[in-house]
Amino acid sequence: MTANNETGIVQPVDEIGKIAAEADVYFHTDAVQAAGKIRIDVNKIGCDLLTISGHKIHAAQGIGALYVRKGTLLEAMLYGGSHERSRRAGTENVPGIVGLGIAAEIARAAFERGDDRKMAAMRDQLEIALRHIEATGTNGEAAPRVPNTANIYFDYIEGEALVIALDLKGLAVSTGAACSSGAIEPSHVLTAMGLRPDRARASIRFSLGKQNTPDDIDFALWLVPETVARLRELSPLYNKVAVTP
Amino acid sequence: MTANNETGIVQPVDEIGKIAAEADVYFHTDAVQAAGKIRIDVNKIGCDLLTISGHKIHAAQGIGALYVRKGTLLEAMLYGGSHERSRRAGTENVPGIVGLGIAAEIARAAFERGDDRKMAAMRDQLEIALRHIEATGTNGEAAPRVPNTANIYFDYIEGEALVIALDLKGLAVSTGAACSSGAIEPSHVLTAMGLRPDRARASIRFSLGKQNTPDDIDFALWLVPETVARLRELSPLYNKVAVTP
Repeated sequence: MTANNETGIVQPVDEIGKIAAEADVYFHTDAVQAAGKIRIDVNKIGCDLLTISGHKIHAAQGIGALYVRKGTLLEAMLYGGSHERSRRAGTENVPGIVGLGIAAEIARAAFERGDDRKMAAMRDQLEIALRHIEATGTNGEAAPRVPNTANIYFDYIEGEALVIALDLKGLAVSTGAACSSGAIEPSHVLTAMGLRPDRARASIRFSLGKQNTPDDIDFALWLVPETVARLRELSPLYNKVAVTP
Repeated sequence: MTANNETGIVQPVDEIGKIAAEADVYFHTDAVQAAGKIRIDVNKIGCDLLTISGHKIHAAQGIGALYVRKGTLLEAMLYGGSHERSRRAGTENVPGIVGLGIAAEIARAAFERGDDRKMAAMRDQLEIALRHIEATGTNGEAAPRVPNTANIYFDYIEGEALVIALDLKGLAVSTGAACSSGAIEPSHVLTAMGLRPDRARASIRFSLGKQNTPDDIDFALWLVPETVARLRELSPLYNKVAVTP
């Protein structure tokens, strides 16, 4: 992954690209979570293959793109017609393709305007304010991250319960990845980072999009602390350890 | 195929379904060309699997559906997330799915109104009138066919040349399947039906859609005969055999 989907941490893909090139092996990176959030340069990364997904950069669902470096040999996964040079059979999703192209142009223009820096500033404001809640912090805070993601732990709370409580009040956040929603296992990403299972389960992801405004941050900062406090009141574990403010 | 894409001929899928059931083998039918043209009943066909494509019933490109009879074992072709019960990884194309559902409802309502019979009447009018051109006829005329397709041969003409000549005047027709446009081989479908290669190459497909009106038929009937006559004047083969009206 160019950027991890749960934590937003940007992986050292440039270094991986160099290692792969020296070893003469193909290098594919999943840049779905990075596209539109940080600038991507396939030559800087040195990847042979790179994937992006349309709906992550405000194009439609159901469309994506695979960058293929010239000379990279690919075996088709879908057979049938000779569409896309026999690499992917099936009538092309023309409106989706055109829309993805336009979305990419719009995303590039947003970098020129500095929208990524504005988004990072809002994200940082959220993190810094939430840190005043006791036993709360950002996972992967010190690592380079995409500007829209904050993965935050609130010890003594079940992340899933917090997601539901916030959702009922109009704030959409998530635990782990959407692709595994409903899973009860703690996030494999957070446990691989060395988090204890209970802290991994106490973590939720805040994701900003380009429609978010400072008012949304204010709303979150009004809602989250009181919701966390209420859930902790109900938490036998929290009351047992009797953490005091 | 439930209906062939080049000729519109409806295949005896009900019989195939019985044979497959007796032999206890899975039966999949590609109903892409049949959906919205004839009524489809998976229980009547007796298929285990049936595919349709959205853009053939006026839904968006990039969306389709696979009917899976309960109990049919399927191996995934795309791996990753557990979307669609781990049968097809990837964020679902929600607008596409909803649109396909609505398009299917609209297609069903069209049958109730008898739109398929109106379309067949227009198609028949086209065929009957074109038959007055010498050395011209419908491929698969006697077979059951979907109401919108007419595959017609105009001997002594290259179908590709006729397609281009008609296109320049505003009438869109095709040779063979769109998935193999640009191919110079005669249609494998028509040659399998026993047509000589030169007649297969002299064949073009007229497809009606629900936006077509009787005016479009009049336009085709005004344009096609004179275009065929002009191309035949240029045809050394036609002039050699000296077919007279």
